Amino acid sequence: MTEEILWVNDNLLFLMDILGTFAFACSGALAGIAKRFDPVGVVVLAFVTAIGGGTLRDILIGNFPVLWLKNDIAIVVISIAAIIAMLAGKWLQKIPYILFIFDAIGLGLFTIYGIELGLKSGLSIEICIALGTITACFGGVIRDVLLNTVPLIFYHEIYVMACVAGAVLYFILGALGVHLFWTRIFSMLLIILIRIVVVKYHLSLPKFYLKR
Amino acid sequence: MTEEILWVNDNLLFLMDILGTFAFACSGALAGIAKRFDPVGVVVLAFVTAIGGGTLRDILIGNFPVLWLKNDIAIVVISIAAIIAMLAGKWLQKIPYILFIFDAIGLGLFTIYGIELGLKSGLSIEICIALGTITACFGGVIRDVLLNTVPLIFYHEIYVMACVAGAVLYFILGALGVHLFWTRIFSMLLIILIRIVVVKYHLSLPKFYLKR
Amino acid sequence: MTEEILWVNDNLLFLMDILGTFAFACSGALAGIAKRFDPVGVVVLAFVTAIGGGTLRDILIGNFPVLWLKNDIAIVVISIAAIIAMLAGKWLQKIPYILFIFDAIGLGLFTIYGIELGLKSGLSIEICIALGTITACFGGVIRDVLLNTVPLIFYHEIYVMACVAGAVLYFILGALGVHLFWTRIFSMLLIILIRIVVVKYHLSLPKFYLKR
Repeated sequence: MTEEILWVNDNLLFLMDILGTFAFACSGALAGIAKRFDPVGVVVLAFVTAIGGGTLRDILIGNFPVLWLKNDIAIVVISIAAIIAMLAGKWLQKIPYILFIFDAIGLGLFTIYGIELGLKSGLSIEICIALGTITACFGGVIRDVLLNTVPLIFYHEIYVMACVAGAVLYFILGALGVHLFWTRIFSMLLIILIRIVVVKYHLSLPKFYLKR
Repeated sequence: MTEEILWVNDNLLFLMDILGTFAFACSGALAGIAKRFDPVGVVVLAFVTAIGGGTLRDILIGNFPVLWLKNDIAIVVISIAAIIAMLAGKWLQKIPYILFIFDAIGLGLFTIYGIELGLKSGLSIEICIALGTITACFGGVIRDVLLNTVPLIFYHEIYVMACVAGAVLYFILGALGVHLFWTRIFSMLLIILIRIVVVKYHLSLPKFYLKR
Repeated sequence: MTEEILWVNDNLLFLMDILGTFAFACSGALAGIAKRFDPVGVVVLAFVTAIGGGTLRDILIGNFPVLWLKNDIAIVVISIAAIIAMLAGKWLQKIPYILFIFDAIGLGLFTIYGIELGLKSGLSIEICIALGTITACFGGVIRDVLLNTVPLIFYHEIYVMACVAGAVLYFILGALGVHLFWTRIFSMLLIILIRIVVVKYHLSLPKFYLKR
């Protein structure tokens, strides 16, 4: 039974990992196209956006060679995403909803990945929460730095908070003895739900210090 | 006697480490507030500014997981600094002198830290001087990159030279057989002194090549 | 005979490594001078441009401490390059051809270096091609990020493609059983040749997706 769940689990994680990588790669590629980069620049930006967060995580915890060096499938998925973005960019931009969902899924998945790699390295809970958030958010930060703009996460859409909230739920459910499979699913769903609500209602954190 | 000195020494280092981290975190937080980041963005920038230099140093020498992953107190100090900056930013900006002193202390301390970690890794003297300078200066570089501005150290206030001068003094005193405690103190004091003199008299290095 | 070839080979690699490091350091220093950095800023930018790509490569594959920490000669060459650039910048800018050739040589050499370090780490061929390209191109990316501009490689001159083409040739020649010495030489020559042709005829990749 447990085996079956884990079997579902691993296939699910694998599928979502690919979806997340694909989504982040698309967002990077579309950003590069918008800046009129040449095709290679578009691929490079897609690549950096998709693997940047996980690479920084692997570097911080000392997981070498970093995962994507051992995983050709990431390069394949990212290249496909970049090519699709170049051929169908106009079309993709007309359905941002799909990309947004992919991005939210990637955000959820990469947060959980970061947490679990942190736990494997024997790091404390709050550090694991930070690691999960870095894994999910820093690909976008690097993308924005290379685009020569101030990273979006500093301004918008409770991006970081969604990851932190999901990461906290992960540890609460774990402490409650919930099965790892459901702990992962519920944490990811919370992150995705927060992102949907925030974007739908244009929520942002109060800048109370600006009133002073 | 030596024991007592080392006891003073360690407590002093610990205190100055916290002060330095606090100072760098404040400078990052205030920069984020000035750019009207949301509160999470302010915390992230404070964090990156305070731990960026040490993280790069740990990565370059292969010290994994990087120190702040093993040291929850850094996260606590940085969060407190960010919250204080958000609540009392206006007030803090009225007394830049205190922040400047903290920053100079942090600069001195992080330079010495970098040197000693380099020595522990068996690196050459000039490499250790570079490491100490990177530790002290690169948190600010990363902060400026994320703020989408050209790093201050490229233009102003003999920031890098102060660290190099202190690092060189560290090795001169060491070669003269001065006790480690006083070597650290004098090197840090030189860095702090240079920073104070430079800022007080608006000194900068001559750009001789611009005359040509 | 083979020994003799390898002897030539190693001396040649060493010479080209120094030339390449010198060239990349000059390009960084000249960029800093153009931005009116202070002398220390110029040296820092020269340093980052020359060692940035190799440092990122070492970090990704987990080669610590990164090579330049163990190699004082890099610091010496880079410092000399920066000083020459400051004293003779005007003169150097009048003969960009020399700098361009140095840069192309550096590009070729650093690509091969990255590939061979990847192979030593037991990475797959396509990953080694990526590593070689990163080694050659990312010093310039970091330089541009610090200069607060969008990295040139995203827009211009088939910079990345030249490295990829040379890297692919390296593996084709290897598969054909060509001697390592000639494999290295021909791969580097291809990269240099592509760069010369591209710059001479102002070639760039078609942005087919902009027509859509």
